[in-house]
Amino acid sequence: MIVQCHQDLSREEYERVYKKLEEFGCQVTEVVTQLGHYFVALAKRDIDIRRVGHLDGVADVHRVSDSYKLVSRKWKVDPTSVDLGDGVVIQSGGLSLMAGPCSIEGEEQVRAVAAHLKAHGVSIMRGGVYKPRTSPYSFRGVGLDGLKMWSACAKEFGLKIISEVLAVEQIEGMAEYVDIFQVGARNAQNFSLLHELGQVDKPVLIKRGMSSTIEELLQSAEYVFSSGNEKLMLCERGIRTFERAYRNTLDLNAVPVLKEKSHLPVIVDPSHGIGVRRFVEPMALAGIIAGCDGLLVEISPSPEAALSDGDQTLDFRESANLFEKAKVVHRLREGESLQGVDEARARIGG
Amino acid sequence: MIVQCHQDLSREEYERVYKKLEEFGCQVTEVVTQLGHYFVALAKRDIDIRRVGHLDGVADVHRVSDSYKLVSRKWKVDPTSVDLGDGVVIQSGGLSLMAGPCSIEGEEQVRAVAAHLKAHGVSIMRGGVYKPRTSPYSFRGVGLDGLKMWSACAKEFGLKIISEVLAVEQIEGMAEYVDIFQVGARNAQNFSLLHELGQVDKPVLIKRGMSSTIEELLQSAEYVFSSGNEKLMLCERGIRTFERAYRNTLDLNAVPVLKEKSHLPVIVDPSHGIGVRRFVEPMALAGIIAGCDGLLVEISPSPEAALSDGDQTLDFRESANLFEKAKVVHRLREGESLQGVDEARARIGG
Amino acid sequence: MIVQCHQDLSREEYERVYKKLEEFGCQVTEVVTQLGHYFVALAKRDIDIRRVGHLDGVADVHRVSDSYKLVSRKWKVDPTSVDLGDGVVIQSGGLSLMAGPCSIEGEEQVRAVAAHLKAHGVSIMRGGVYKPRTSPYSFRGVGLDGLKMWSACAKEFGLKIISEVLAVEQIEGMAEYVDIFQVGARNAQNFSLLHELGQVDKPVLIKRGMSSTIEELLQSAEYVFSSGNEKLMLCERGIRTFERAYRNTLDLNAVPVLKEKSHLPVIVDPSHGIGVRRFVEPMALAGIIAGCDGLLVEISPSPEAALSDGDQTLDFRESANLFEKAKVVHRLREGESLQGVDEARARIGG
Amino acid sequence: MIVQCHQDLSREEYERVYKKLEEFGCQVTEVVTQLGHYFVALAKRDIDIRRVGHLDGVADVHRVSDSYKLVSRKWKVDPTSVDLGDGVVIQSGGLSLMAGPCSIEGEEQVRAVAAHLKAHGVSIMRGGVYKPRTSPYSFRGVGLDGLKMWSACAKEFGLKIISEVLAVEQIEGMAEYVDIFQVGARNAQNFSLLHELGQVDKPVLIKRGMSSTIEELLQSAEYVFSSGNEKLMLCERGIRTFERAYRNTLDLNAVPVLKEKSHLPVIVDPSHGIGVRRFVEPMALAGIIAGCDGLLVEISPSPEAALSDGDQTLDFRESANLFEKAKVVHRLREGESLQGVDEARARIGG
Repeated sequence: MIVQCHQDLSREEYERVYKKLEEFGCQVTEVVTQLGHYFVALAKRDIDIRRVGHLDGVADVHRVSDSYKLVSRKWKVDPTSVDLGDGVVIQSGGLSLMAGPCSIEGEEQVRAVAAHLKAHGVSIMRGGVYKPRTSPYSFRGVGLDGLKMWSACAKEFGLKIISEVLAVEQIEGMAEYVDIFQVGARNAQNFSLLHELGQVDKPVLIKRGMSSTIEELLQSAEYVFSSGNEKLMLCERGIRTFERAYRNTLDLNAVPVLKEKSHLPVIVDPSHGIGVRRFVEPMALAGIIAGCDGLLVEISPSPEAALSDGDQTLDFRESANLFEKAKVVHRLREGESLQGVDEARARIGG
Repeated sequence: MIVQCHQDLSREEYERVYKKLEEFGCQVTEVVTQLGHYFVALAKRDIDIRRVGHLDGVADVHRVSDSYKLVSRKWKVDPTSVDLGDGVVIQSGGLSLMAGPCSIEGEEQVRAVAAHLKAHGVSIMRGGVYKPRTSPYSFRGVGLDGLKMWSACAKEFGLKIISEVLAVEQIEGMAEYVDIFQVGARNAQNFSLLHELGQVDKPVLIKRGMSSTIEELLQSAEYVFSSGNEKLMLCERGIRTFERAYRNTLDLNAVPVLKEKSHLPVIVDPSHGIGVRRFVEPMALAGIIAGCDGLLVEISPSPEAALSDGDQTLDFRESANLFEKAKVVHRLREGESLQGVDEARARIGG
Repeated sequence: MIVQCHQDLSREEYERVYKKLEEFGCQVTEVVTQLGHYFVALAKRDIDIRRVGHLDGVADVHRVSDSYKLVSRKWKVDPTSVDLGDGVVIQSGGLSLMAGPCSIEGEEQVRAVAAHLKAHGVSIMRGGVYKPRTSPYSFRGVGLDGLKMWSACAKEFGLKIISEVLAVEQIEGMAEYVDIFQVGARNAQNFSLLHELGQVDKPVLIKRGMSSTIEELLQSAEYVFSSGNEKLMLCERGIRTFERAYRNTLDLNAVPVLKEKSHLPVIVDPSHGIGVRRFVEPMALAGIIAGCDGLLVEISPSPEAALSDGDQTLDFRESANLFEKAKVVHRLREGESLQGVDEARARIGG
Repeated sequence: MIVQCHQDLSREEYERVYKKLEEFGCQVTEVVTQLGHYFVALAKRDIDIRRVGHLDGVADVHRVSDSYKLVSRKWKVDPTSVDLGDGVVIQSGGLSLMAGPCSIEGEEQVRAVAAHLKAHGVSIMRGGVYKPRTSPYSFRGVGLDGLKMWSACAKEFGLKIISEVLAVEQIEGMAEYVDIFQVGARNAQNFSLLHELGQVDKPVLIKRGMSSTIEELLQSAEYVFSSGNEKLMLCERGIRTFERAYRNTLDLNAVPVLKEKSHLPVIVDPSHGIGVRRFVEPMALAGIIAGCDGLLVEISPSPEAALSDGDQTLDFRESANLFEKAKVVHRLREGESLQGVDEARARIGG
C-alpha cells in the first residue's frame, strides 16, 4: 500500500499516520522525495484502505500488488517526466537523444562531439569518465578532472550531460557537473550505490543488469525512489544469452513491458545492446517503434581510435543519419498515421 | 567453395568437375535444386579457384568461409525471392503478412479468418493441423482431413497456406495442400525432417530453435538447400532466456544479422516471440523497422476460446489495426523518408 | 488421475471404466504398455477417486498434480528398473556404465572398444551409427550396415548396445540390433519420434534438450510412456548457457531433482556435458555422488583420430581409470559410510 | 608478462625495472601485496623475457597469455593457501567447511550455531550482517553492532568469521571483526569495491556473479590481487539459466575448470546454488568430488523462522549429517582409493 501525503504534512499528522499504519500491523517505510511525501506500508493481512485514506494529511491511498511499489504504474498512472532544465525534458511519448563517446578522452574530442550534437539538435551528451572495465589493466577513464572540462564545454554548447557513476564516493564530486547519473549494468544491483543516489536531487538512469529480470530492474529503481529520489529513468541495454553473434542480446520486449508496468521513462541503448556498429541503427529505430522514450548511443569522431568500445561506436555521418531517421520514426509513432489507426477503428466500430 | 554449374550441365561435364574437385582433395557434395546445380566442395587446403572456374559446365566459383555455404550471402549477394504463385511473392524489402489461428479447429473458424484476411489484403493464412505439444494429453490438431477442408476454403478465398509439418511421414500427405511447410522451433534441428523437406518442391519456412544460435539456424537451412530445395525462409520466433516476464524473448537482433549473413527472406513471429497479446503489435512493428520481410501472426475470431495459445492471439480488431500499421511502417522503411537519408547525406558529403 | 488396471482387464471392465471416467467429465487416454494397463484421466473438477477405485478391473487410483503423470513418482514410488536381459539391469541405486565411441567407424575400432569394456566389467556399449550433425557436410554415420556389424561384435563380447535413433523411419531397422534406443538432445521434443518409440518394446533413453526444462524432459518421457513403452531412462547431458569455457553446462542439479520427481533411472553424460576430455572424470564422479544411476561416456582407442567429438573422448587408460574410480565412488554412496550417517543419527537422536 | 621481484627490491632497482619495461613499450602496473612485489607488463609486441629476467631485483619473469594474469596458474603453479591463523588454513586439497545462518539475527541464534559448529569440528562461521536484498523493503541486516556481538561470540568459541561486505564504506568498520570478506554475486563486478578490498590485509572470497563467465570471475579476482591483496578465494554459487526447478543452477563444471586456470582455492556454495534445502547435501558432496577446497553452507537452528533464505537452509541435524558425509567424501577424494588409481595404472602401464 502506498500512502500519498499532502506536501505540507505536519509533524503531528505524520506521526498519526505512521502510528495508525503500525497499528494495522504494517511494516512502514517513510519516503520523502523532491516531489512528494509517501508511506510504503506492507501489510500482512488485508486492510480497509479507507481507514487510512480519511486521516488528516493523507492525499490518496493505493494498493499495489507488485513487489515494487513506488515505481509501479498501478498507483501512478500518469507517466513521470524528468526535467533537466533549459527545456530539456525526458518524457513518455518523447524521444530524448543522448549520444557521445564511450569514454571522454580529451577536449578536442569533447568539442568535436558537442558541436556535432548541437548541429543535429541533440541536447544530451553521454560520456564515461569512470569506466567499469572487466580487466583492471584497461583504461579506467579520465576521472573528475576530465568531467570538469567536459562539463564546461557542454555548458558552452548548451548541452546536458549523462555520465556513469561507479561508486558511492564519486557521487559528491560528480553531482555538480552531471545532469544525469547513469548506473551501469554491472552496478544494477549495487544496492549501496542505489541507496545513496536516492539522497541526491539529480536524475538517475538505471541500466538493466546483464541478467536482471524486468522485476529486478524495477526493484533497483524502487531502491532509489524509496531513498528519496524520484527523478528516474530505466534503460534496456541488452541481456546475456547463449547467442554469440552479437555482444549482448538487446531485449526490445522490455520496452512495452516496462512502459506498462512503470510510470518511468524507458531509454534504449542499442550500442551496448547489439554491440555491432552497422546494426546499431536498425535496433535503435526498432526501439523507437516499440515505444521507448529515448536513445543512448555511442558516437565518436573516430571510432577506430576510441580507447574503448570502438566496435559499436558510430561515426559522425552514421550518427547524423541515425538522428534524422530516429526523428522520422518517432514522428510516425506519435503521429496520426499510427496513433490514429486504433482510434479511427474504434470510432467506426472496425 | 561453391561451384555453380550451368543449368544444362552434361553428364560428362558433371563427372569431369566432380573428379577434378576430388583431385584437389575436396569433400564434394552435389546439390541439385529446383533452380540450380551446384557442388559444395570442402577443401582441406587452399585451392586456386580459377583451376575449377575454367572447366566446362562451370558458371561460377565462390569461396565461402562461413560454416554454412549455400544459404550464405557471401556467394549469392542478390536476395532470394520465394514465389507462391498468383502474384504472392516473399521477398527482401517486401512485407509478407501471414496470419491465422494457432490451431485449425473447424470450417466456421477457417472461413471467418479467411474472410478477415481477404478483407485486409493479407494473402497468406497460417494455421496448425499437427500441433507440437509439450504434453501428450494436449490437443494435437485436426490432422490431414482438417488440412484438406482448410485448403479448399483458402483456395476459395484466394489465399495461400502455411502450416507446420512435424514428421517426415506427414510431408507427402501435406504437400498437395500447403503452399509453405513450416518447421517449428522444436524441430529446428530435426535433421531427418530437414533433409526430407529438401526433396520436395515446396517452400519451407524454418523457425529458429528455442536455443539455436544464428549459425545453427543457418545450418538448418543449409540442410534443406543442400538436399535440393532452395525455396527457403528463416523465422525469428523468440529464444529462451532467464526472463520470465514474457513467454519467449523475441530476438530482433537476429533480423539485421540474418539479413546480412544470408540471402534468404527473414520473417518475424511476434506472437510466439513475446507471447503476450497486447505486446504483439509493438514487437511486430519493431521487427519491420529492424528489416524483416514478413510477419507470422496468430489471430482468431475468439482468442479466449482458442484450443491453444489464446493468450498470444489477436482478435479481428487488433489484427486489423496491426495489418494497417504494419503497412504504414513498412512504407516508411522502404520510402524516401528513411531510405533517402543515407543517400542524401552521401550526396552532400554529410 | 491415473487409473491402474488389473493385467487381465476384460473388454467389459474396460468399457465400464472408460465410460465412468467420461461421465465424470474426464479427458481419458488409455495406455497399454508392456507392463501395465492404465487410464490417464484429466478432470476439470475434483472427483472422489473412491468412486473409480471400486470398479471391477481397477487395481489402484492415484491423483497426480504434476503436468506429467505416468513418469511421476507421485503415483509410483518404487523406482523403475530397466532389464536388458543377461543380468544387465539399469536401476535406482545401481551404476550402469555405458561407454563407447561417439561414432561407430569400423570393425577394428568396435572390437578394440568391446574388448576394453569387457576387460573392465562394463556391460553396455554406446556408439552412433546415425549422427545428428549441425552441418550437412559432416560425417553422418555408418548407418544400418555398421549397426549390424557392431551388434554382431557386441553379442560376441556379451555386451548390450545403446545407439541414437534420429528418425521414425530408422526405428524398425534398428530395433532388432539395439538394446536401448537413445533420443538425442536435438530430438528431445521431436514428439513424432517419441510417440513411435512408445510403440516398440525396447528400452529408450531420453536426453534432455539443450534448453529443456526438467518439466519438459519429463513430459517427453511421458510421450513415450503414454504411447505404450515404460522401459525408460532420463539423461542429463548439459544445457546451453552463456558460459563459453565448456561446450555445454552439465547440470548436476537435475540429478537429485529428477530422482525425486520421477521413478525413472537417471543417467549422466559427462562427455557432452562439459565437453572437455580432462574434465570428464571429475564431472562423472560428481554425478555419481549426486545420485545418478549410470554414466554415458565417450571413449575411443584413439580420440585424436575420431571422426567426431574427439575433444571430449577418453582414451583407454583414462576410461579404465574412470571406471575404477566410478565404482569406488558408487560403493561409497551406497555403502554404510554415507548411507549409514542419516540412519545412525536418527537412531541416536543426533 | 608478470615480473616477480625480490622482496627487498630497492628503490633504485624498482625504477630500473619500471623504466626498462616502459622502454619495451609495455603498459606497466606495479603491484605490491602482503606477500610479494610484482610488475604486470602488457606488451604490444613480443619481448625476449630474458632481457627483463637478468635485471637486479627481478626474481622471475613469466609470460601469461590469459586475460587475467596474477590469479592465473600459468605463472604460479603452486596453489595458494589462505591462512586465517590458529591453524585454520584454506588450501588446495583441503576441505574448509564454512557454515552459518544467512542473516545474523541475535546472540541466542549466534551462540546456538557456534556451539553446533564447534561440536562438529567446523572452524569457520558464515553470517550476513549487511544483506543485499532485491527489494528495499526487505530486512537488510543487523549491521556493525550485530557483527561486533557475533565476532565476540565467535572468538569465545574459537571460530573464524566470514561475512559479506556490500560497500566500500563498510570495509573499515568490518575489517577488525571479520576473518574473511565475502563479495556477493551482485557485487562480483563492483570494481570499486574490489579495488578497495585490494588495499586491506584481510582474505577475500569472491562469489561468481549470476551471469559471470569463468573469465570474468577470474578478472574480478585479478582486480583485488592487482590492488594489493593476494589472499583470495573463488566461490561458485550458481548461475542464472532458463531452468526454473531450482533457484539458481549450481555450475559444478566451474570447479575443475577454475582449479586448472587459477592457483586460488575454490569454494562451493550449494545453498544458494540449488536453493532447495533437501538438495543441498547431494550438490555439496558432488562439489567435493569435483574438486572444491571448501563449502559455504547456510544452516540455522530453525530454518522455518529465518528472516531470509529459510528455504535453502539446513537445520542442525541435516547439517551435522552433511559435515560428516563431507569429510568422508573428502577423505575418499584425497585418499588412496581414488588418488591411487591413476598412479597405480601409470606404474603398471595400464
